[in-house]
This record gives sequence, structure tokens and C-alpha cells, in this order.
Amino acid sequence: MKLITAIIREVKLDKVREALIEADIKRITVSRVSGHGQQRIEEMYRGQIIVPDLIPKIKIEIGVNEEFVDITVNTILKAARTNSEGAVGDGKIFITPLEECIRIRTGERGGTAI
Amino acid sequence: MKLITAIIREVKLDKVREALIEADIKRITVSRVSGHGQQRIEEMYRGQIIVPDLIPKIKIEIGVNEEFVDITVNTILKAARTNSEGAVGDGKIFITPLEECIRIRTGERGGTAI
Amino acid sequence: MKLITAIIREVKLDKVREALIEADIKRITVSRVSGHGQQRIEEMYRGQIIVPDLIPKIKIEIGVNEEFVDITVNTILKAARTNSEGAVGDGKIFITPLEECIRIRTGERGGTAI
Repeated sequence: MKLITAIIREVKLDKVREALIEADIKRITVSRVSGHGQQRIEEMYRGQIIVPDLIPKIKIEIGVNEEFVDITVNTILKAARTNSEGAVGDGKIFITPLEECIRIRTGERGGTAI
Repeated sequence: MKLITAIIREVKLDKVREALIEADIKRITVSRVSGHGQQRIEEMYRGQIIVPDLIPKIKIEIGVNEEFVDITVNTILKAARTNSEGAVGDGKIFITPLEECIRIRTGERGGTAI
Repeated sequence: MKLITAIIREVKLDKVREALIEADIKRITVSRVSGHGQQRIEEMYRGQIIVPDLIPKIKIEIGVNEEFVDITVNTILKAARTNSEGAVGDGKIFITPLEECIRIRTGERGGTAI
């Protein structure tokens, strides 16, 4: 199992949620975060370090079985991108290992609980 | 070491915190998230995809040594469940590998820093 | 690749961000969390379990290539510590494995996308 974490633009949340539902990926966790990403930063301005503003972003977390990794990633990539070419600030997807998943209601574990 | 992440109902936060304290698990991180989980979703309504509302949830993260994994999971399972049978929407627990833990105050690492 | 997660004091956010920028670590995600950490807890008060208050904290997440792990950790340690000796409540750093990183704009993967 994998945990897929996407940091996306706020304006893309509904489009990504809808695309995930269409792809039959229904269990997601959403949180409000902020970040500085790939934006070019002027590091020095008259000898002063310039720290960029924190820009509001949305973080989506999805636990998936191996066979759902590609469809989840591709669905997010397509729905979260600005137009078809993408734009700086569109965000990132991280894939991390998920060792166990437990459904609180039943105590069920593993792939069927995800 | 493992990182245990639980997504629970908002109303269960105090009960889970209290149960964790009783089980001697004191270092937790809490955040407000939202999600759609196992709720049955009507996918099509007159040809229209219905995206479910995001429901407020609480995310609890706990870094633990291996010997604390079971007690932590069992404590959350018991305290986060609706009544004794559980109900849809009670949430999930994820277990992910934790390679290193460092206490900022002292720079201490590993099991003693957790 | 690794995912570095730091839980720090709210008042240290700007100092840590500035120190990371100076160390050429620019892509970070910030969120507001709360927690109880290493604070000593009076477990029993006249037979009553005392659950400590949740204290507001900041969570910073940074995806890094292996060669950036040490500099990232050391930069956070130095900037997030209270004075030079540190104080209880300064927080924690967690290091977890990061299997894949994908830039949404380009679909680029791995170390160059981070």
C-alpha cells in the first residue's frame, strides 16, 4: 500500500475531487496548508535575504493499494494542472510507503480496509 | 519506529486524547482536516456526478517505538469507535515507517527522543 | 529521497523559514497543528486524569534528496531551538522515506522534481 500526498492549488480542489470520484477513488483527506514552492526567489535584495510569502495550498492524502497508485497519480496530475501545459506553482505529488491501514469501525486491516 | 496517523470524528478527540494519556502515550500532534470516507456515494444523479461534501475530521499523529504500536492502535480503535459496534465514518488508522526522530531541544535521536 | 517533518513553536516559523532559504531549501509546506509534547503531565489530580491543553504548533514538511537531509535537519535544529540550550516544547523532527516525488506542472519524477 502507498500513501499519496498531493499539494495543489486551492482553486483546483473541486476539480481534483471530482476527477478522483470519477476514477472511483473516494476516500481522501483534505487539509489547508501553505507553502513556497518552485517560484523563483530573489535571494538577495540590497544585501537583504527575501523570504517569499506563504501561499495557501491544499493538501490531499489518499491511502491506496498498489494497483491504484498510477490511476491516482495520473488523475491528480491531469486535474491539478493549469491548462494543458501547467504553470509554476501547480504543486507536487509525494508517494510514501504505507505499512498498515485499519478501519476503526471494524478493526479490519490491510488492502480491504483502505 | 512507526508513525501512526489516525483520522477520527471531531467529537471523539477528547475521548481519544484521554485514552492515550491513560495508556502513557503523551506526545501527539493534532490537526483539523476534512474528508470523504467510506460513506456510500451516489455516483450518478440524472447523469450528473455527485461529489460528496467534505466532512470535518481530526487527524492525530503519533511517533512511537515498535513496542508501542499495538497499544497505540488498540487505544485509538477503542476510543474512536461509535458505541461498541462502530459506525460508518469512524475513520482510519495508517501506520507508516519512521526512520528517525530528533528532539529539537537536545538534538537527541532515535527511540529515546520519541 | 526523504520527507522531513518538523513540529516547531509558532514563534519560530519565520526564523526557520529564513534559515532554510539561506541554506537553499526553498520548497516547504507549512500547516497549523496543535500538540502536547514532552511537557510533564500530572496524570492524576485527586483521582482525576488531567489531559493537558493542546498547544498551537507549526508543522513544516520538506521533501529532500539524500544529500540534503543533514543540512535540512541541522538548519531546523539551530533555528527552532529556544536560545542556545533549548527548552521543553521546542518540538521534534521526523524523517520518513519518500519513494517518489512528481512535479504536477511537468509530470517530472524523482530527484530533479523535488
